[in-house]
Amino acid sequence: MIVAIIGLGLIGGSFAISIRKRGLAGRIIGVDRDEKNAETALNIGLVDDIFDLYDAVTAADLVIVAVPVDQTKVILTGVLDRISNMATVMDTGSTKQGICASVSDHNKRKRFVATHPIAGTENFGPLAAISNLYNGKLSIICDREKSADDALEIVQQLYKSIGMNIVYMNPEEHDLHSAYVSHLSHISSFMLGLTVLEIEKNEKTIFELAGSGFASTVRLAKSSPEMWTPIFEQNSHYLLNALDTYIDKLKIFREAIEKKDTVKLTSLMRQANDIRRILDGKKLSEEKLITNRD
Amino acid sequence: MIVAIIGLGLIGGSFAISIRKRGLAGRIIGVDRDEKNAETALNIGLVDDIFDLYDAVTAADLVIVAVPVDQTKVILTGVLDRISNMATVMDTGSTKQGICASVSDHNKRKRFVATHPIAGTENFGPLAAISNLYNGKLSIICDREKSADDALEIVQQLYKSIGMNIVYMNPEEHDLHSAYVSHLSHISSFMLGLTVLEIEKNEKTIFELAGSGFASTVRLAKSSPEMWTPIFEQNSHYLLNALDTYIDKLKIFREAIEKKDTVKLTSLMRQANDIRRILDGKKLSEEKLITNRD
Repeated sequence: MIVAIIGLGLIGGSFAISIRKRGLAGRIIGVDRDEKNAETALNIGLVDDIFDLYDAVTAADLVIVAVPVDQTKVILTGVLDRISNMATVMDTGSTKQGICASVSDHNKRKRFVATHPIAGTENFGPLAAISNLYNGKLSIICDREKSADDALEIVQQLYKSIGMNIVYMNPEEHDLHSAYVSHLSHISSFMLGLTVLEIEKNEKTIFELAGSGFASTVRLAKSSPEMWTPIFEQNSHYLLNALDTYIDKLKIFREAIEKKDTVKLTSLMRQANDIRRILDGKKLSEEKLITNRD
Repeated sequence: MIVAIIGLGLIGGSFAISIRKRGLAGRIIGVDRDEKNAETALNIGLVDDIFDLYDAVTAADLVIVAVPVDQTKVILTGVLDRISNMATVMDTGSTKQGICASVSDHNKRKRFVATHPIAGTENFGPLAAISNLYNGKLSIICDREKSADDALEIVQQLYKSIGMNIVYMNPEEHDLHSAYVSHLSHISSFMLGLTVLEIEKNEKTIFELAGSGFASTVRLAKSSPEMWTPIFEQNSHYLLNALDTYIDKLKIFREAIEKKDTVKLTSLMRQANDIRRILDGKKLSEEKLITNRD
């Protein structure tokens, strides 16, 4: 199988490593509009060749589109136009409605599988690619009934081979849940970074106090603006709703601090504590009361 | 040396482990107003004995106060009243102005060293105590000139022995910087947790999408309300300022999303990205441009 990977950053590069490690491709062709990225990816052996977009697509049995979601919308139609009739195209974008809509009437729509592997780090570029990025993580496939059985099968097998579990949603559900859980977290973190940079003028102090929880809360503020701007733009509807609720909660907490309403502060934090149970994958009935130290 | 540890949670318990591991104490006496915590701490060998507060304090050469900051203010005077004239008392609280003020006129003020080890996890209670909590981290000592030389020396030696670096500040500086860097992060995370719990009704989806960055951003929302309520109350002045700036930034970002102002969104995120350089401990002049993948 010849695999073409469009976009040789963290996501595309980590696909290249994972696919090669498991011997899933006879040849991996890379595409990147940034020449330096393409050269780096070739030099460190992520890919066997660097081709232009349409040459790569024409040669491939499987095309993995791993570019920012605005670019995915721009190129996807042209990619489907040029693939062979039996080839499969999958994307990896963090939004799904706009991307699915952009090819909904394409005569090769059945060759496309809309996916979103829930994996990433705050790093980017081909040098950020790692072999275990996907192992044990979850991938979402949208509108599976709109893909041909054999195309769906190839993509599912790929994800399973690299250690991912698969969940199915429609694009609207995907974008709503992603806004609420993933995209809001990124905004929370980006703006936390911006705030601390503005009010804390002493960089050395930020560095020294980072161990107090700041470093992990602000980690996502290191993420790539080129990747995130189009995600926020495409998912603005659900995101505005999430952001309004977040700002409201912060205002409520702010008021409780101003009034020194310790009962309210404790109550709000105790409600928030329930996130521990959910992240541990426990149902309410399995919940154990956590003993406080005081 | 007999060490009394008041409060056998994550902080006090981890002191017990660290002190025992390095043979710094002949005997460790524990105090906890929660009988179950005290029993657990004794059973798992964190401490050699459980005493009442004043019995422990009277017997000790070094008293480590590791309870929530409201309780520290309540007990500190009584602790100083009862220690022997050569004993040393240190606290570990996340706020410093109120605690230092509470004993500023005490006739044994020189026996007290005000400290804040910048270390913690989102877990609490004696079972959360770990041996490497402090190693490689930073501790802040406030108003060192108000402590006797020998008391200061004992505390500095303790921190160095368990692998901590020491920074000196006055209580006002400490509380300002802590509000801006540490306390704001906790509120950001607590309210993110609360928001997602409210708008995302599907717990399974939160669990499934947690790998998208949510888990790390919301980690601090698991923290103990009993510990954090009095911190927010005592540090409300600086914290309200930090929180207002944070809410303003979120509103600016919200407006840019609403207007689909992608230039503004990218610009805000690029500014926030500078946090990477600071957390890496690099000065502006050493900064390397990070290559984007696209």
